[in-house]
Amino acid sequence: MLKQFDFSDESQPCSLSLKALMKGLGQLQRTCIERNIPVLVLVDGWETAGKGTLIQHICYELDPRYYSVAVFSAKEEESYPYLWRYWRHLPKKGHMTIFNRSFYQQAIKEGSKERIHRALEDGYGFEKTLRDDGTILVKLFLHISKKTHKERVHDVKSFPLEKKLISFIDDGQLEDYDGYEKAWSDCLKQSNYVFSPWHIISMEDKKAGTKQALQVLMHELEKGLLEKRTSLVRSHEPYAVLPPILLDLDKECSEAEYDEKLPILQKRAKSISEWLLLYRIPTVLAFEGTDAAGKGGTIKRLVKDMDPRLYDISTTAAPTAEEKSFHYLRRFMEAMPGPGRITIFDRTWYGRVLVERIEGFASQEEWRRAYREIGEMEESLIRHGVNMMKFFLVIDKDEQGRRFEARERTPEKRYKITEEDWRNREKWDSYEVAYREMLYHTSSKEAPWHIIEGNNKRYARIRVLEAFIMQGMKKLEEAAPHKKWDWEKIWKRT
Amino acid sequence: MLKQFDFSDESQPCSLSLKALMKGLGQLQRTCIERNIPVLVLVDGWETAGKGTLIQHICYELDPRYYSVAVFSAKEEESYPYLWRYWRHLPKKGHMTIFNRSFYQQAIKEGSKERIHRALEDGYGFEKTLRDDGTILVKLFLHISKKTHKERVHDVKSFPLEKKLISFIDDGQLEDYDGYEKAWSDCLKQSNYVFSPWHIISMEDKKAGTKQALQVLMHELEKGLLEKRTSLVRSHEPYAVLPPILLDLDKECSEAEYDEKLPILQKRAKSISEWLLLYRIPTVLAFEGTDAAGKGGTIKRLVKDMDPRLYDISTTAAPTAEEKSFHYLRRFMEAMPGPGRITIFDRTWYGRVLVERIEGFASQEEWRRAYREIGEMEESLIRHGVNMMKFFLVIDKDEQGRRFEARERTPEKRYKITEEDWRNREKWDSYEVAYREMLYHTSSKEAPWHIIEGNNKRYARIRVLEAFIMQGMKKLEEAAPHKKWDWEKIWKRT
Repeated sequence: MLKQFDFSDESQPCSLSLKALMKGLGQLQRTCIERNIPVLVLVDGWETAGKGTLIQHICYELDPRYYSVAVFSAKEEESYPYLWRYWRHLPKKGHMTIFNRSFYQQAIKEGSKERIHRALEDGYGFEKTLRDDGTILVKLFLHISKKTHKERVHDVKSFPLEKKLISFIDDGQLEDYDGYEKAWSDCLKQSNYVFSPWHIISMEDKKAGTKQALQVLMHELEKGLLEKRTSLVRSHEPYAVLPPILLDLDKECSEAEYDEKLPILQKRAKSISEWLLLYRIPTVLAFEGTDAAGKGGTIKRLVKDMDPRLYDISTTAAPTAEEKSFHYLRRFMEAMPGPGRITIFDRTWYGRVLVERIEGFASQEEWRRAYREIGEMEESLIRHGVNMMKFFLVIDKDEQGRRFEARERTPEKRYKITEEDWRNREKWDSYEVAYREMLYHTSSKEAPWHIIEGNNKRYARIRVLEAFIMQGMKKLEEAAPHKKWDWEKIWKRT
Repeated sequence: MLKQFDFSDESQPCSLSLKALMKGLGQLQRTCIERNIPVLVLVDGWETAGKGTLIQHICYELDPRYYSVAVFSAKEEESYPYLWRYWRHLPKKGHMTIFNRSFYQQAIKEGSKERIHRALEDGYGFEKTLRDDGTILVKLFLHISKKTHKERVHDVKSFPLEKKLISFIDDGQLEDYDGYEKAWSDCLKQSNYVFSPWHIISMEDKKAGTKQALQVLMHELEKGLLEKRTSLVRSHEPYAVLPPILLDLDKECSEAEYDEKLPILQKRAKSISEWLLLYRIPTVLAFEGTDAAGKGGTIKRLVKDMDPRLYDISTTAAPTAEEKSFHYLRRFMEAMPGPGRITIFDRTWYGRVLVERIEGFASQEEWRRAYREIGEMEESLIRHGVNMMKFFLVIDKDEQGRRFEARERTPEKRYKITEEDWRNREKWDSYEVAYREMLYHTSSKEAPWHIIEGNNKRYARIRVLEAFIMQGMKKLEEAAPHKKWDWEKIWKRT
């Protein structure tokens, strides 16, 4: 089946020596370093096809300060959201990273159609995001026939040391070459994008194959370096002005009601957090809103009774120089929760289409592209079973003014207010446009924005707690549909 | 036994309200943030003693941008060098980190005297290093009696949800309270250092205990903030001038000999790397030497035949702003190898006593202290079973001059030479003093420096390969003393 692929590009035997190819690759790497371009090389294919040998040759003349090889194996990592570990190992600007196996491999190994389908959806968004951001992405698949595969595995197993090392090898392939070939063939075809095609290299002859792979890699690097990175957004006219969102920001919750409800809801939220742990459901809570909208205070009330060992609060400051040398989404992916844990973001990846847009830290092309990138990242997380909630806290300009002044009057709150806050306040109208577009472009069925009317702090806090509990109940019922969830009884026990 | 401890400091009931204590802690945290002081709080003690509750109260009024709670549980992490995961989670300047359980807990759980002894040795160096570097370190142990412990575990187990959650609890304690108490008692006494004492808090009454713990924590923060961080090095006279090292730098290896030996040694080195993987022995190879001493080229020959998925080359550049906000050793600890893997450092943590000393990036007090800090870090790694080798490549000034000029003449090597290299060359004599002191203070029996005469590149490469193979053989024989290691036969097979 893999034979159906068009080998023509790669079928010419390579006349250069291995040494010349490795040297050439070293030179191309130096150009990528100078031009600050990230390079990601995926090396996937059959066991014993020669991945290790190829990677060895790729690396030989590279400057070790600017490349690394990423091997994915730790069990722990597998329980994080699907793309988490791949995001973590991405090359930064000017670096080259070689992935031993691609992000499709795990799905193929697990085998189910649905799993592969999900991986393809995740992979598409991921590859597109990387390409759009200027990463040179080269995808190599090392192919050998069933006969060769069988012979090589047999050879390898006959050496005492290697016999033991082979236990690191994926045994499924040895038993079911045909099934694997079918799965790979489908997967390669479907992920063979115009903007990042697969190169299938025959490794029947390891040396010839290695040479061909090196040549393909050089060719792709050259192409990438020549490519004029044109803007991917076709039209440059401004988006249509969106209608203002009509909200009754002054919705009230009386003190008496608040004092009665709050402790009950906090206990329930604690209980939900423990059940989520038990069912290993990771939770992401994203908070956005203007300065002084009440994000911090709301988060504090939300987690009040929870075990602090179960959640992390991730606050988003301006990116460091190191963080800036990666794709902007990477630092958020790094903070994503493991199974059963909760990550609460006080400001989020939406900074790209808010502060970065307004302040001009991101170009128009970059922040426009971000709506799609964010959508795809969130979808990928949700596909992986993440319980995701996005809260947008809204106050009006007068209320913000009152809160700013109160902060300046109260000594222990004064540290919360800076000159910058006042400067941001002057950009209120620009932010309003940005918020509106954000809500419009990134509210999906799976990850809707919870718009919280915030002029009354008590009201906002109660709303967020209720929403968290409601969605938690829903997710738990979905996770264990056969369990009789008697919530009244559960609440009574808390 | 724990009763023998002096509870007197902490035995006064606390008259402040919980709310006041939490607020006070919040204020102290803000001072630590302003003064850029890192704070590390260890919360250890019996299961069900109330660690979670205490941590909840500690965190309640803290600014979430500047604190985090570290929970250590992942199996994967346990297989890294002992202190690796604790280093990773250290607070940076101005941050507070609360460790759920201390770095002694794992050893106590495993129980053997020898294991606890090792943990204490590691812990001493670690705590001292942190204190000397200006970290406020607060150690809390939450104590409850056997009777209370039994009752609480029983209570907890009677709730359906908690019954399941309790599977996260260390069961050893439930079965062997007395054994645990004995072990903890010894451990607390021995790690009760003047510069970082333990505070034992009775949690028989959870609320009273929480209040007392908060008060202790506040007290320690106040003390830490007042403390004048005096230099820890007593004398300021310069070290005695050390005798020059007499080396025959021109030792030769002919081209013919090199061409014959190199491929054989490279194959053997590959074989050693695979056996090390099989026996899960982590390896650290540290390379130091002047500019153009041949570190890069030597490393390249060393790994030539190895599987690039087994090793990482970690090159040491000037630290980033983020890295500078931590203890200088942290970034190196982060790069340490997992079981069976190899990390090769091209320049190392010795930068502290070399470039940082010469350029004045570290104060005299800091770089002098570093000899001990480095010694303790290396000892800790070796105690954990790391196969450590330190190579110091030496060339003379004339040879460096020749190599610099060659680099300038050769187009594809020109990127290797910069203005800075020439500037460093002018400081040759200062570096010589620093190198000599480094060799003198940090060559131990367990981690000796391999001084490699380097004027002849071929000679240096062969020497390093031979040393790597020899030590690898030794480590493997130690790891499997009953196996018949027939090296001749092994070499023949490679």
